[in-house]
Amino acid sequence: MLQAPPAEPGMREDEVDTPALLIDLDAFEHNLDTMAAFLAPTGAKLRAHAKTHKSPVVARLQMARGAIGQCVQKVGEAEVLAWGGIPDIMVTNQVVGARKLNRLVALARIAQVSVCVDDPAQVAAIEEAAAAAGVRIPVLVEIDVGGARCGVQAGPPAVALAEVIAASKHLSFGGIQAYHGSAQHIREPERRAAAIAGAVEASRRTVEQLRQRGLACPVVGGAGSGSFQHEVASGVYTEIQAGSYAFMDADYARNIEAPPFRHALFVLATVMSAATPHIAVVDAGHKAVPTDSGYPLIAGRPGVSYVGASDEHGKLTVEDPALRPRLGEKLRLIPGHCDPTVDRYDWYVGVRKGRVECLWPVAARGAMA
Amino acid sequence: MLQAPPAEPGMREDEVDTPALLIDLDAFEHNLDTMAAFLAPTGAKLRAHAKTHKSPVVARLQMARGAIGQCVQKVGEAEVLAWGGIPDIMVTNQVVGARKLNRLVALARIAQVSVCVDDPAQVAAIEEAAAAAGVRIPVLVEIDVGGARCGVQAGPPAVALAEVIAASKHLSFGGIQAYHGSAQHIREPERRAAAIAGAVEASRRTVEQLRQRGLACPVVGGAGSGSFQHEVASGVYTEIQAGSYAFMDADYARNIEAPPFRHALFVLATVMSAATPHIAVVDAGHKAVPTDSGYPLIAGRPGVSYVGASDEHGKLTVEDPALRPRLGEKLRLIPGHCDPTVDRYDWYVGVRKGRVECLWPVAARGAMA
Repeated sequence: MLQAPPAEPGMREDEVDTPALLIDLDAFEHNLDTMAAFLAPTGAKLRAHAKTHKSPVVARLQMARGAIGQCVQKVGEAEVLAWGGIPDIMVTNQVVGARKLNRLVALARIAQVSVCVDDPAQVAAIEEAAAAAGVRIPVLVEIDVGGARCGVQAGPPAVALAEVIAASKHLSFGGIQAYHGSAQHIREPERRAAAIAGAVEASRRTVEQLRQRGLACPVVGGAGSGSFQHEVASGVYTEIQAGSYAFMDADYARNIEAPPFRHALFVLATVMSAATPHIAVVDAGHKAVPTDSGYPLIAGRPGVSYVGASDEHGKLTVEDPALRPRLGEKLRLIPGHCDPTVDRYDWYVGVRKGRVECLWPVAARGAMA
Repeated sequence: MLQAPPAEPGMREDEVDTPALLIDLDAFEHNLDTMAAFLAPTGAKLRAHAKTHKSPVVARLQMARGAIGQCVQKVGEAEVLAWGGIPDIMVTNQVVGARKLNRLVALARIAQVSVCVDDPAQVAAIEEAAAAAGVRIPVLVEIDVGGARCGVQAGPPAVALAEVIAASKHLSFGGIQAYHGSAQHIREPERRAAAIAGAVEASRRTVEQLRQRGLACPVVGGAGSGSFQHEVASGVYTEIQAGSYAFMDADYARNIEAPPFRHALFVLATVMSAATPHIAVVDAGHKAVPTDSGYPLIAGRPGVSYVGASDEHGKLTVEDPALRPRLGEKLRLIPGHCDPTVDRYDWYVGVRKGRVECLWPVAARGAMA
């Protein structure tokens, strides 16, 4: 079932039912404006990653500030954005299976949709689906720039796959996808810069070899919130795929040279038990605030730490018993990782200056297929 | 949005779209039957925990085999069970906030609902809500039996809180809640038994002190899938709150004396990339199979290991390249932790002998409030 909204516009923040997913609208707009201002004088465009926000509303606010489109990881996310009026959507991922591909190419009637490959069998399957639907799909070659996960090797293997795409009647070669995911979270700035330098070099070499084979490379896509300054500075990347910058989370904030973004996303939680000395328990465990990138922080409450998550309980410890949150008190948790946290909720509650200003559906919540 | 079902009855399992939440119905029924047969000759009853399954369908199958009711952690879960016809539901948790309490007491018109407390302020709030609704609610005292999370201390503090309940006009004293959550996952049988022995002793002492004050203790509730044999053997616990036994997960299976339950819950995933030697990537990352209790196992594929989860990618390594799963192949993942995994999906796909037999909604998916 879809869950009922936990609030109504006009409510005070402390009246919002918990757990709830809050957007601090002032901080959120600051983040969108900051990224837009950073990119404006460069040659790179923002194609924001919707796997973070899963919302056509957020996507439109990004595009109103200059983003040229959106990225997604899943066909279900592409559907929700296309149905919500987003005109240009790239699946930064391989899509395998006829059922999913048929859904994807059907969207080409209402939006531009592109997709990535790392195997000729995927190209053949997309060609078949596109031919059956009578549409033309841009397809990008994903290259492995250090993640050792998906992607062909840069250089000749990437060129060979691009030629397969270019030779397919209902496909066009869309460019290369060169995202270095694991580099986003390297703490030391020098090591992170070095990892991205390798990705830039692999991309530059591949673009040059494509050119030598007569293939223009319209897009070099990649970069996340932890590294985008480097990809932009390279002059090689044309599209930046940051997503978390809009919300920021505790993990990105731990990076030594954290980008100049503010925490804009919170899980509002209520203290449901204070029966044990030095401990308070909130109603948000790892079902409400996933812990894959560590426990949440407690906003504005120094000395209060989230130290343990079970399914529905979050255990807080306090250094000074006098500062223990009270039974019934509501606290803002800063998620360790914004992407999976957003995907737990059906509703965003937008707040500004202590009041609920808006409710937005997390429209692609659970869109894993 | 509610996600579309990934299958239809009659399909072959390899036609199910991924990621999908599978129940192996033969293994699942074996687990339900095994627990029922174990408890039948004892004095303890099963009140299965619905935080695991979130489904009135599963609840009814448990009750058809002798379970006397269901446990939940959240009011939203209680609502879904009550609306689905379950007659006896205990919230094994504190419920804080007037909005939630009003929803809870409203259910008392269609089901028996009980709830736990560990503070007199919670008792007063439930009394106020029950009085306003004109209903009578059994309230249990949660005691801390070693988890150092929620619950008053055993003995006099528990008795004092029980007396507050008993003196409340619209409440009845329902018993004590004595669940030792952290003990469920202790690997060594002797240490686990010792932890539960402490919980049993605390419960026995509290029941005796209640009796001395003239308060009968109708229920002593607790126990999970990792320890229930001990609570049952104690003769003190009247209700066993196991949930995971129905599905089993990789974490419980790591317990040295794992209970005689079979893996019945799987995430079906598709290999979406095999571009890197010795690696296959499936379309189920930690959004599809949460990793709070470790990575999933790969069923029936020795030598294939899930070694890394990002949001939408699961990275598998293989010892022998000849045994690498093929692009497009579907694999059954055994979740590290069944409870949060179930809560990611809108649908169960019930399979038997390679065919889809049924679809059941995960009706309380996302019911965190």
